[in-house]
Amino acid sequence: MRQDPERLSFEIQARDGLARRGRLLTPHGPVETPAFIPLATRGSVRGMSSREVAGLGYDLVLGNTYHLLVAPGPDRIAAAGGLHRFMAWPGAILTDSGGFQVFSLAHGSISEEIKGTGKKRQGLAETLDISEEGVRFRSYRDGSELMLSPESSMSVQAALGSDIALAFDECTPFHADRDYTARSTERTHRWLDRCLAWHAEHGPRRQAVFGIVQGGTYQDLRRESCEAVAGAGVDGIAIGGTLGRDKAEMAEVLGFTVPGLPADAPKHLLGIGEVDDLMHGIGLGLDVFDCAVPTRLARHGMALAPEPDQRFRIDVRKSRSAGDRRPLVAGCPCTACAEYDRDYINYISRSEELTAVRLLVEHNLTYMERLMSGAREAISANAFGDYRRGILSGAAPTGCYP
Amino acid sequence: MRQDPERLSFEIQARDGLARRGRLLTPHGPVETPAFIPLATRGSVRGMSSREVAGLGYDLVLGNTYHLLVAPGPDRIAAAGGLHRFMAWPGAILTDSGGFQVFSLAHGSISEEIKGTGKKRQGLAETLDISEEGVRFRSYRDGSELMLSPESSMSVQAALGSDIALAFDECTPFHADRDYTARSTERTHRWLDRCLAWHAEHGPRRQAVFGIVQGGTYQDLRRESCEAVAGAGVDGIAIGGTLGRDKAEMAEVLGFTVPGLPADAPKHLLGIGEVDDLMHGIGLGLDVFDCAVPTRLARHGMALAPEPDQRFRIDVRKSRSAGDRRPLVAGCPCTACAEYDRDYINYISRSEELTAVRLLVEHNLTYMERLMSGAREAISANAFGDYRRGILSGAAPTGCYP
Repeated sequence: MRQDPERLSFEIQARDGLARRGRLLTPHGPVETPAFIPLATRGSVRGMSSREVAGLGYDLVLGNTYHLLVAPGPDRIAAAGGLHRFMAWPGAILTDSGGFQVFSLAHGSISEEIKGTGKKRQGLAETLDISEEGVRFRSYRDGSELMLSPESSMSVQAALGSDIALAFDECTPFHADRDYTARSTERTHRWLDRCLAWHAEHGPRRQAVFGIVQGGTYQDLRRESCEAVAGAGVDGIAIGGTLGRDKAEMAEVLGFTVPGLPADAPKHLLGIGEVDDLMHGIGLGLDVFDCAVPTRLARHGMALAPEPDQRFRIDVRKSRSAGDRRPLVAGCPCTACAEYDRDYINYISRSEELTAVRLLVEHNLTYMERLMSGAREAISANAFGDYRRGILSGAAPTGCYP
Repeated sequence: MRQDPERLSFEIQARDGLARRGRLLTPHGPVETPAFIPLATRGSVRGMSSREVAGLGYDLVLGNTYHLLVAPGPDRIAAAGGLHRFMAWPGAILTDSGGFQVFSLAHGSISEEIKGTGKKRQGLAETLDISEEGVRFRSYRDGSELMLSPESSMSVQAALGSDIALAFDECTPFHADRDYTARSTERTHRWLDRCLAWHAEHGPRRQAVFGIVQGGTYQDLRRESCEAVAGAGVDGIAIGGTLGRDKAEMAEVLGFTVPGLPADAPKHLLGIGEVDDLMHGIGLGLDVFDCAVPTRLARHGMALAPEPDQRFRIDVRKSRSAGDRRPLVAGCPCTACAEYDRDYINYISRSEELTAVRLLVEHNLTYMERLMSGAREAISANAFGDYRRGILSGAAPTGCYP
């Protein structure tokens, strides 16, 4: 582990049990943690302008190396002055490594993100070869052959100019056996060393690199991976790979993984972001979380809401919302809740009006940011336990503390 | 013609040749004319909240009787307190009669608006019967049988509670012969009388009714229709039906139609709204215009721009916008132009990101409102001729006067 204030430093400001409130200082401003990171996969958060996303209180978004490599390509973004300028985003950017996407192609479980690009193109996407060198695959856009390796992933992320780059890893799938997972995790560690070596020589001086802990659901492999990543000289640590079949298994895997990590390192739980998962992760001392849930739910007419029995969401397309004069969530300051009722959102969402998706994205991201800012305040007040119980019981409706 | 200040009055404030600047006083506030009317077909302007549309300077939007009848239905909108409350729109609303849509189904040229509802549903939409009584058709949503007649159209519009209702008419298509057009136009006049009779007895006291002039491209039929509609006791007049094959023929048809209308009546040109058409229509003394162009173009990656040689639009998806650091239109205050460059819009539009549609809708509606507010100011300054020449030559870039 290293802390270099020129690229990233992490200050822990308050602790409440294992939970902590902190601040990641990046070249593009501070990031208040615990933080939820909205996805700007292709340089835009679904339906929102960058300024609007910042206006919701977010200071960090996630851009996707795989998608931005396929199009518009790193050269064009570098020519625009980097991803921040390209997408007019005033805050910090974390880029993933592309590993998740290329291995999703290979392992046959093409991620939702890739599906989102349209079925026509999907047929073109194809993994050609996985080797120690890296992964060769076809562009879903034009079928051309592309490569992601530790070096090329870091090179793309260098061109994007993100504040935090993730090391290139293999996201081992749930169905991988112990032997495969062990070999894959070791390769991920070798790849991490190659990422850091490339970055030390060619990477932007002010870009931080997070390593990714793998090891599947195996305690010993996770522990080994924690040690390997923490010992490699990274600026922060992300937890990747499968966390099991269900939330109970995820709790178990996180329970034996997180304690193996350096206490003071900033910690990112990759791809996890349901309301109860966030409360659990924060309680374990994790700091940042990214997830497609808030934006993906919006596409399907679902609003985050204090409904523990319904996975913290309302399916506003269901007929019970027709004629319902209540806002999605009472007290929520978003446009959907401040200006419309469920009746209207039900209608425009069922009609597949663009306005519905846009309003629901804004609502869901508002909900998430309020949930996280409430958690931050609760930690400062030494009241995270109460806050978490309030959220999980549905008693704390909009997430804001108190 | 009638003027009843309780439902609508029209003040002409300045004249410049035939062009005039005016103000329609509706129960939901004044509408500055000449005005472009954004489409809120299903109670939402594509991707925008009602407040955002008002923030662009609009004071009048158009809701669609056909679509709102199919879903959510007039009862549900009435239960919400009318369309203004349902869609949280603070300004005035004009509703069309649904005639255009049901006859588009019948005449085999299903309108873009209907196509917009998705191909799956389109198969269900079907006209069952056209008679003196009205038009029976199938819902594109569930295949159920629905009816639009003069009385039912007015009844739906009464439930919607729009400020201005349009009489139910047959939109005669371009391919109709003179005999069909003559008979259809006469029926439209009989339908107008039935609309007004129903409205006098059952309609909202504060709702105005505009009659629609038909007559195809035939001078004598258009003139007869002008007389019939003007003599029927309407609050304003809309010009509908085919205006010919091309812009030259449209100019000819408008040239012999508009002079047949009462000078002081508010006049609406239905479904027309390209930049040069607006300049032409304003020059003839027309007051309000609605058109799907600004919102539809956005879906296809097109931005309105001072480019007379390119029909006043830029196809930002074309490769020449890649790497282009200029805004869509210099000086335009919209989010797309103020915060992004063509390079970025090119990428997100080609990637079919929702944000692209939303930014282009905002740009195109900003462009239209500035074009119209510039025209209003130019008329007040007795300089509409110069203004029009500036717009048509591309010399007046953003439309605003001077």
